[in-house]
Amino acid sequence: MEEKEISQAVIGRLPRYYRYLGDLKAAHVERISSQELSELMNVTASQIRQDFNNFGGFGQQGYGYNVDYLHEEIGKLLGLNTDHHLIIIGAGNLGQALANYVNFEKRGFIVKGIFDINPALYGKQLRGIQVKPMEEVIDFVDQNDIDIVVLTIPKNGAVDVTGQLVKHGVKAIWNFAHVDLDVPEDVIVENVHLSDSLMKLSYKINRRKREENGGKNKSVR
Amino acid sequence: MEEKEISQAVIGRLPRYYRYLGDLKAAHVERISSQELSELMNVTASQIRQDFNNFGGFGQQGYGYNVDYLHEEIGKLLGLNTDHHLIIIGAGNLGQALANYVNFEKRGFIVKGIFDINPALYGKQLRGIQVKPMEEVIDFVDQNDIDIVVLTIPKNGAVDVTGQLVKHGVKAIWNFAHVDLDVPEDVIVENVHLSDSLMKLSYKINRRKREENGGKNKSVR
Repeated sequence: MEEKEISQAVIGRLPRYYRYLGDLKAAHVERISSQELSELMNVTASQIRQDFNNFGGFGQQGYGYNVDYLHEEIGKLLGLNTDHHLIIIGAGNLGQALANYVNFEKRGFIVKGIFDINPALYGKQLRGIQVKPMEEVIDFVDQNDIDIVVLTIPKNGAVDVTGQLVKHGVKAIWNFAHVDLDVPEDVIVENVHLSDSLMKLSYKINRRKREENGGKNKSVR
Repeated sequence: MEEKEISQAVIGRLPRYYRYLGDLKAAHVERISSQELSELMNVTASQIRQDFNNFGGFGQQGYGYNVDYLHEEIGKLLGLNTDHHLIIIGAGNLGQALANYVNFEKRGFIVKGIFDINPALYGKQLRGIQVKPMEEVIDFVDQNDIDIVVLTIPKNGAVDVTGQLVKHGVKAIWNFAHVDLDVPEDVIVENVHLSDSLMKLSYKINRRKREENGGKNKSVR
């Protein structure tokens, strides 16, 4: 049975649906129409229906959707019904922030190991896990069932260790390093380029300024 | 003079161009063709030309692009030729990670203040800036020229403080809180929803598993 190819845009919207449905569930809402969900989420009802149709539609639309069911089904699509084992490479502020983020664990993302090159951090406890020397990461990956590697180290280190990790069977990387990793096709990389995000914000601020100045800035026609 | 409406997708790609051009510049590459850039960045040459045409094209294509010039022009579009003053609300691990990120400052994103509700953090120095009590943030915004507010606090707090900030003239928010902020149209919000990103990764892992199992997972038709 071939699965339909789902567009990146649809995939990108699934976590947001999941988030809103979780809030609705917490507020004890039992059913919701695509129109109501549309107003809440500020997207069109037709986009919601189209998105859901990629996955079979999730139930009758006349009646509205069953919130519990929809939340659970989208959660299953997102792989949240099984645990994922993570290791974090880089125990700096960002690595520590991610290690300490309780909600990840609640959703089944369990941190199994944390590694750093800085000896001052060895043995430091983050949510009950001791930071280990970077030299041990490959052995650790070989000996444990690790689903996701989180990279919170500078780009040169990230490129080097990615090559090693991939050779040792790592298939999914959550990459915070400021570089696009070059990996074989069967390795999944999800990037969080914080600088890119900040620059997008800055672009929009700058564009607003140009508009306010009525196009006086010559660099943009 | 009306500026052409640039699509979100194009805007989203600009920081990546800027990043690659910065690397090329550091490697003393003087000119590059759209074809070469295309191979380096793993996008089509025609997409590069189309993207650049939104901004006037950036010079002759037969010759290739002048790397320095292109880097600078895209930098200007991204607003990197002027400083931006930031405050960070939330001095936990993530706020500290962002405060300590040297590259932001290099690009003109200058942290002017850091605020938290936790008294244990008051007075703590982050890159020479003392963490201040949350109660002082609105006065600080009133008395200083702040371009961007970075929110690294939980969602309830984020919603509350956003209302206040907007009333006091804040026009751009870099939002790490796990919520979509409801702001007036002239306020720019750039979201970094880390959980959404992790769930996208998890979706892809899950899809690969289903494909390997040949569609045995009943939850997906």
